[in-house]
Amino acid sequence: MSKRIRVAIVGATGYTGAELLRLTHGHPRIEVTAIVGQSKAGQRIAQILPNQAGVRDGDIESADMDAIAGNADAAFCALPHGASAPIVSALRSRGVPVFDLSADFRLRDLDTYGQWYGEHGAPELLPDAVYGLPELYREQLKTTDLVAVPGCYPTAATLALIPLVKEGCLDLSTIVIDAKSGASGAGRALSEATHFSQLAEGVRAYKVGGNHRHGPEMEQTLSAVAGEPVRLTFTPHLLPMIRGILATAYATVKQGDAERFTQLAREFYADSPSVHVLDPGQNPDTLAVRGSNRAFVSYAVDGRVSRLVAQCAIDNLVKGASGAALQCFNVRFGLEEDEGLRGLGMYP
Amino acid sequence: MSKRIRVAIVGATGYTGAELLRLTHGHPRIEVTAIVGQSKAGQRIAQILPNQAGVRDGDIESADMDAIAGNADAAFCALPHGASAPIVSALRSRGVPVFDLSADFRLRDLDTYGQWYGEHGAPELLPDAVYGLPELYREQLKTTDLVAVPGCYPTAATLALIPLVKEGCLDLSTIVIDAKSGASGAGRALSEATHFSQLAEGVRAYKVGGNHRHGPEMEQTLSAVAGEPVRLTFTPHLLPMIRGILATAYATVKQGDAERFTQLAREFYADSPSVHVLDPGQNPDTLAVRGSNRAFVSYAVDGRVSRLVAQCAIDNLVKGASGAALQCFNVRFGLEEDEGLRGLGMYP
Amino acid sequence: MSKRIRVAIVGATGYTGAELLRLTHGHPRIEVTAIVGQSKAGQRIAQILPNQAGVRDGDIESADMDAIAGNADAAFCALPHGASAPIVSALRSRGVPVFDLSADFRLRDLDTYGQWYGEHGAPELLPDAVYGLPELYREQLKTTDLVAVPGCYPTAATLALIPLVKEGCLDLSTIVIDAKSGASGAGRALSEATHFSQLAEGVRAYKVGGNHRHGPEMEQTLSAVAGEPVRLTFTPHLLPMIRGILATAYATVKQGDAERFTQLAREFYADSPSVHVLDPGQNPDTLAVRGSNRAFVSYAVDGRVSRLVAQCAIDNLVKGASGAALQCFNVRFGLEEDEGLRGLGMYP
Amino acid sequence: MSKRIRVAIVGATGYTGAELLRLTHGHPRIEVTAIVGQSKAGQRIAQILPNQAGVRDGDIESADMDAIAGNADAAFCALPHGASAPIVSALRSRGVPVFDLSADFRLRDLDTYGQWYGEHGAPELLPDAVYGLPELYREQLKTTDLVAVPGCYPTAATLALIPLVKEGCLDLSTIVIDAKSGASGAGRALSEATHFSQLAEGVRAYKVGGNHRHGPEMEQTLSAVAGEPVRLTFTPHLLPMIRGILATAYATVKQGDAERFTQLAREFYADSPSVHVLDPGQNPDTLAVRGSNRAFVSYAVDGRVSRLVAQCAIDNLVKGASGAALQCFNVRFGLEEDEGLRGLGMYP
Repeated sequence: MSKRIRVAIVGATGYTGAELLRLTHGHPRIEVTAIVGQSKAGQRIAQILPNQAGVRDGDIESADMDAIAGNADAAFCALPHGASAPIVSALRSRGVPVFDLSADFRLRDLDTYGQWYGEHGAPELLPDAVYGLPELYREQLKTTDLVAVPGCYPTAATLALIPLVKEGCLDLSTIVIDAKSGASGAGRALSEATHFSQLAEGVRAYKVGGNHRHGPEMEQTLSAVAGEPVRLTFTPHLLPMIRGILATAYATVKQGDAERFTQLAREFYADSPSVHVLDPGQNPDTLAVRGSNRAFVSYAVDGRVSRLVAQCAIDNLVKGASGAALQCFNVRFGLEEDEGLRGLGMYP
Repeated sequence: MSKRIRVAIVGATGYTGAELLRLTHGHPRIEVTAIVGQSKAGQRIAQILPNQAGVRDGDIESADMDAIAGNADAAFCALPHGASAPIVSALRSRGVPVFDLSADFRLRDLDTYGQWYGEHGAPELLPDAVYGLPELYREQLKTTDLVAVPGCYPTAATLALIPLVKEGCLDLSTIVIDAKSGASGAGRALSEATHFSQLAEGVRAYKVGGNHRHGPEMEQTLSAVAGEPVRLTFTPHLLPMIRGILATAYATVKQGDAERFTQLAREFYADSPSVHVLDPGQNPDTLAVRGSNRAFVSYAVDGRVSRLVAQCAIDNLVKGASGAALQCFNVRFGLEEDEGLRGLGMYP
Repeated sequence: MSKRIRVAIVGATGYTGAELLRLTHGHPRIEVTAIVGQSKAGQRIAQILPNQAGVRDGDIESADMDAIAGNADAAFCALPHGASAPIVSALRSRGVPVFDLSADFRLRDLDTYGQWYGEHGAPELLPDAVYGLPELYREQLKTTDLVAVPGCYPTAATLALIPLVKEGCLDLSTIVIDAKSGASGAGRALSEATHFSQLAEGVRAYKVGGNHRHGPEMEQTLSAVAGEPVRLTFTPHLLPMIRGILATAYATVKQGDAERFTQLAREFYADSPSVHVLDPGQNPDTLAVRGSNRAFVSYAVDGRVSRLVAQCAIDNLVKGASGAALQCFNVRFGLEEDEGLRGLGMYP
Repeated sequence: MSKRIRVAIVGATGYTGAELLRLTHGHPRIEVTAIVGQSKAGQRIAQILPNQAGVRDGDIESADMDAIAGNADAAFCALPHGASAPIVSALRSRGVPVFDLSADFRLRDLDTYGQWYGEHGAPELLPDAVYGLPELYREQLKTTDLVAVPGCYPTAATLALIPLVKEGCLDLSTIVIDAKSGASGAGRALSEATHFSQLAEGVRAYKVGGNHRHGPEMEQTLSAVAGEPVRLTFTPHLLPMIRGILATAYATVKQGDAERFTQLAREFYADSPSVHVLDPGQNPDTLAVRGSNRAFVSYAVDGRVSRLVAQCAIDNLVKGASGAALQCFNVRFGLEEDEGLRGLGMYP
C-alpha cells in the first residue's frame, strides 16, 4: 500500500467537517492527523459527531497552526466565510496546501466579495485560488495550493448549464435557476428556519429576487464559460429533507433539443466520474445520489416555447461540499479523481 | 338556526373526499346526507378514514343516483377524471347542482381535453360548467349548477399572476411556473412515486417539458385574463411533505416593481377572503396555510434583469381542492364565501 | 349570540400559545383581548406566527397585569415552568381565573416539584389548583379559578390506564410507559435535539431510566386513581414529525382481556367527548387526531404472558396542551365541553 | 489484489437486494456476476434502482439456477418468505452456498414456522441453516453453506439483551420489546401503511399483542442464550423515516446496574466490530448508524423499580438485513468480518 497523505480537518464539527471525516474514513490514501474545532475544542469527538462513536475516540483539538503544519501534508478548512480567510492565510504561510470549503476564495472579484460577504480577510491570496470544480478547472487544480471549493447551489446550478453555455445553445439573458435544498445546506448553527417544527411539512423560498450570495458565484462560472457577462435569477427554496439539492434551470433555447443537449453534456463530462447525464425523459432524484459524490443531470425542452428545462441533483454535503473537496484533493495529489468517492447513493 | 343544506359526497374515500368530510363537519349550514364510495362501498367509514372514528360510524354507501337526488340539495363529486363525467351527468339530469373536483369540466375546449385526458364522458355539459375560481368568476358561480373546481397546481400558479396579467405588467411569452407539491396531491392511489421510502428525503420533478395536464388549465385561465393566448412552461416537483403547494412564477416585467404588484394584487383580491397578499420581502410558507383555505401570495423583482418572482402557497387539499369546492358552494348558495372555511393554518 | 368571554393569552408566541390563538379563533364564545409575549413584545404577530397573517395584524403586547385584569375575564398562561408561577400569582391576586399550561401547578407535592423543577414561585397557590384533566376532575374544574393543564406525555399515558387502574385490573408494580413524541412537544426554543438535520430520519430516546419530569406527574394521577402509590418506568422518544404523541403502556394483567378493557374504558369515558375508544384489534394513529382535541385509546393483551398493551394517541399541542386548556375553560365557564374543539383530525 | 469471489444477488430489485448491490459495490473481494429479479427481469437495472445509473447499465436477469451455479461462488437471496425456500433449495442442490435474507430458514422449529408463515418449501434444509448473527454464532457460520440472515427487529431486540440474559441478570418473564421502525423495513411492495401521506407525520403500532412473526424469532434466540424458554411481548411501531430501528427493551433486573451491564456487553462484544456499546447515560440514535452496519447499544436502569431500559439502534437495511448478510459472507469466506462494511453512519 502506498504511503498515506496526512491531512488536517479544521472546523470538523460542522456538517461539512463531519462529512469530511466520514468520507476520509473510507479513503485509502488519507490519514487524518488533526481534527480541529474552535468552539468545541476539548470535547469528545463522538459526543459531537455520534456516527464516530467507537471509531474516533479522541477529543476535538484546538487550532494550532504550527502543529497542523508539522503534522499534515494538506488541510481542509470547513469554517464559515470570514472565519476561514485568516486560518487559510496562516496555513498557506506555513506552506500547507489548503482546500477551503468556505466562500472566502470563490469570488475572484474583490468588490463582489465585499458586496456579499464584507471585508476580505486575505485578499492577497485571491490570485492563487483555483475554483474547485474539477469538471471545469481540472488542469489548474493539479498544481494549485489553494482550492476554493464551490458552494452547493452553484455546483448544482452550473453543472447542467456549462456544456450548453459553452456551445452557445442558450439565450443567456433568460436564465432562471429555481433550486430546492435540504436543511443541512444551512449548516449546524441553530435557527428558526431549520427548527424541525417550522421546517418540516412545508416549503418556502428565501432570499428571493436576486438576494442570495450564491447567485454571483453562478454568474462568475457561467460568464467565464460564455466569455461574456451572464446575469441570471436564482431562487433558493428550503425543503423538509436533510440532504440534497435539485436545481431546475430554465432558459430560452437558441438551438438544439433534449437529445442534442444530452449528447453535448455526455461529451463534455466524458472524463468526469462524478457527473452522470440521464437519458432524455428521465428526471434526477436527489434520493438517488444521497450520500454520494455524484451529480445527475438531465435535459428537457418545452418545444412550444423553445424553453430548456435542465436539472441537476446532488447531495449538498458531498458533491456540494466535502466530496468535492476530496475530489479536488485527489486531482491535486495525483490520485484517481474518484478515489474514496465511489460509493453509490443510498436508495432508498 | 337556518335550515341546513343537504349534500352528498361522492367519492368520499379519496383524499379530497375525506377532506370534504372534514371541512363540512365544521360548516354550520351543511348536513351531509350521503357518503358515497365505489370500490369501498359497504366498509366502515372510520376504517377507511380513521379521523372519522367516533364521529361518523356508518358505512360507505354505494352510488345510487336516485337516492342522492332524493336526499341531497347538492353533490360534491370527488372522483378521478373520466370516472366523474358520467356521475355528474347522472346527477345533473336529476337536477342536482354539482361541484365537481375532477378535471372533467375544467377545460372549455373539447380538443384540449381529449389531448390530455381522452374522450370526454359528457361533452354536452361543458357549456354549463363554470370554473370554480371565485376570485375570478364569482358572479358566474352564483347561478351555475355545475362547478368545475380547479386543479391544485393551476390555483397556486394563477392566483399570483392574474392581477399582473390583467394589468399588462408582464411579457406573456416569458412565464415559467416552477411548482412544488406535497404527496397528497397525487392522491390515495398507491404508486412507487408516493411510496414513503422513495419519496421521503428527496425531491424530483416529473412530467417535465410541458407534459403535465395542469399546464393547459393554467394557460386557459391566464389567456382569458390576458385576452390573448398565453403559453407558459410548467414544471411540477414532488416533495417529502403531505400537504402544500408552492408555486414560484417567473416572468419578464414590462412595468412595475414589487410594491406596485403587491398593491395591484391587494386591490384585485380586496373582496376575496381566501387570498392574502404578503408585504414585499416576505415569502409564503406552505406550513402557514396547512389545513386552511387560504392562499398566501407575494411578489419580488430581480431588478438587474427585470424579472418577476411571484409566489403562491396553498394547501393542495383545501384551497387546491375541497376547500375551494366549499367556497364555490357558499357562493352558489348565497352564504358568506368563507363560511366553514375560516380556520387558520396549523402552525407548526 | 351570547356575549363573548374575554380572554388574555400570555406567552402567545410559543407553540402552545400559538395553538391557543388558532383554537380560540374558531371558538364562538371567546374574544381574545390580549396577546402577550415577553421577549417578542412589540413585534408583529404575523411575523412570529405566519398563520395569523391577514387575521391578526397587531403587535405582540408586553405583560401588563393590570391591563390584563381590566380587559380579560380569564387568562391562559403558556409560559415555561418557573416563569409561569409569578405571572399566575399576579393574575390571581387581581382576581383573574387562570388556565396555566406550565408545569408549575401540576404537582401537588411541593417537595416533588422542587426535586424536578426547583424552587416554586407561588407555593401558596398550590392548594387552589385543579389538575386540568376533565375526564377525571370535571366537577372540581367547574368551580376552580386555577387550572393546571396536564403535560402532554401524562395525558397520553394516563388516559388509557385510568379506567383499568380504577377497576384494579393491573399489577401496579409492572407499568411501563414507552412514549413517542413529535418535535413540537419540545417547544419553540432552539436546540440541537430539534434541529431539523439532527432530528429527521432518526429516532432516539431521552431522559431514560426514570429521568423525565413527566414521570412523577403520571404517578400522581395513577396513584390518586388507585388509592395507593404507583411507581412506573417512563421512556420518552423523539420522532421526526411535528405533532403527535403515542403512548404505549405495558402492565401485567390481573384480570380481564381486551374486550373487557375496551368496555370499561367506554363506560368510563361515556360522557367525555374528547376520548374515543377503538375496537380491539385497532391501533390509534397520531395522524388521525392531528390538529384535533381527540384522544384515541385502544387495548390489546398478549395472552401468553398476560400482558396489557394499551395505547393512546393525541396531538400534543391540542389535547396535550392548548385544546385541553380550552376544554377546561369550557367546563369552568359552563359551556359545552367541546365548544370550539369539534374539529376532526387532519387526515392525511 | 486477491481474486474476487463471484456472487449472485437474487431478488435484486427489492430494498434488501438494492442494498446488497450498494454494499457489494464497495467490497474489494466481491464481484457481482448475476443480478436477478423475477417480476422485473428484462428491465434496466438503473430504471428500477436509480442510484445505479451510470454504474450498472445492464438489465435485470431472470432466475436461471444453472447459470447462477455456473457463474457464482455464492448467492444472496433477497426474496420474500415462502418464495425464497424453493430458490434456496435449487441453489443448494447445485452446491451454491446461500445467504438467505428471507424468514424461511430462521426458525428451527417447523411447527412454529408453519404457525407464522405457512407450509415450508424446503424443510429438509432447516437442519443445515445457521442463524446469521455472527455475534452469537460466529464459529458455526464459518463452515455452513446456508445462512439464515436474521430479521431486522430480532437483531435490534436481541443484541442488547443477549449479554445480560447470558449472565442471568434479568427476570426472563418480564421482557418487553417496544420497537420503532422506519418505512423501508416494510419493503418495496406498495401498501396503504407505507403510502407517504398516511405514514408521514404520524406514528402507530401494528400487530400488537404478540402478533408479529418476529416475536418467536426473538424468543428463539434468547431462549437459546438463556437455556430455558423465554416469552416476551413485542410491539412494533411504524415511524416516518426511511431507515432505522430502535428497540427499547424493558425487563426487571435481578442483579446489576447500568455500569455493570455496559461492562458485560463490552466484554461480550469485544471481538464484534459491528456492535458498539455506549457509555451509561448516552442513548443510541438511529441517525448515527444510518447506512452503516453498526449497532449502537446502551443500558439504563430505573433504580426505583429495578427495571432495565436497554436500547439498540441499527439501520434495518444494513445491520438489519443486507449488511448482516455480507458480514456472514465475510465470516464464511474467511475475510475480515467487517470487510466492505466499515463505512460510518451518515450524520446528518
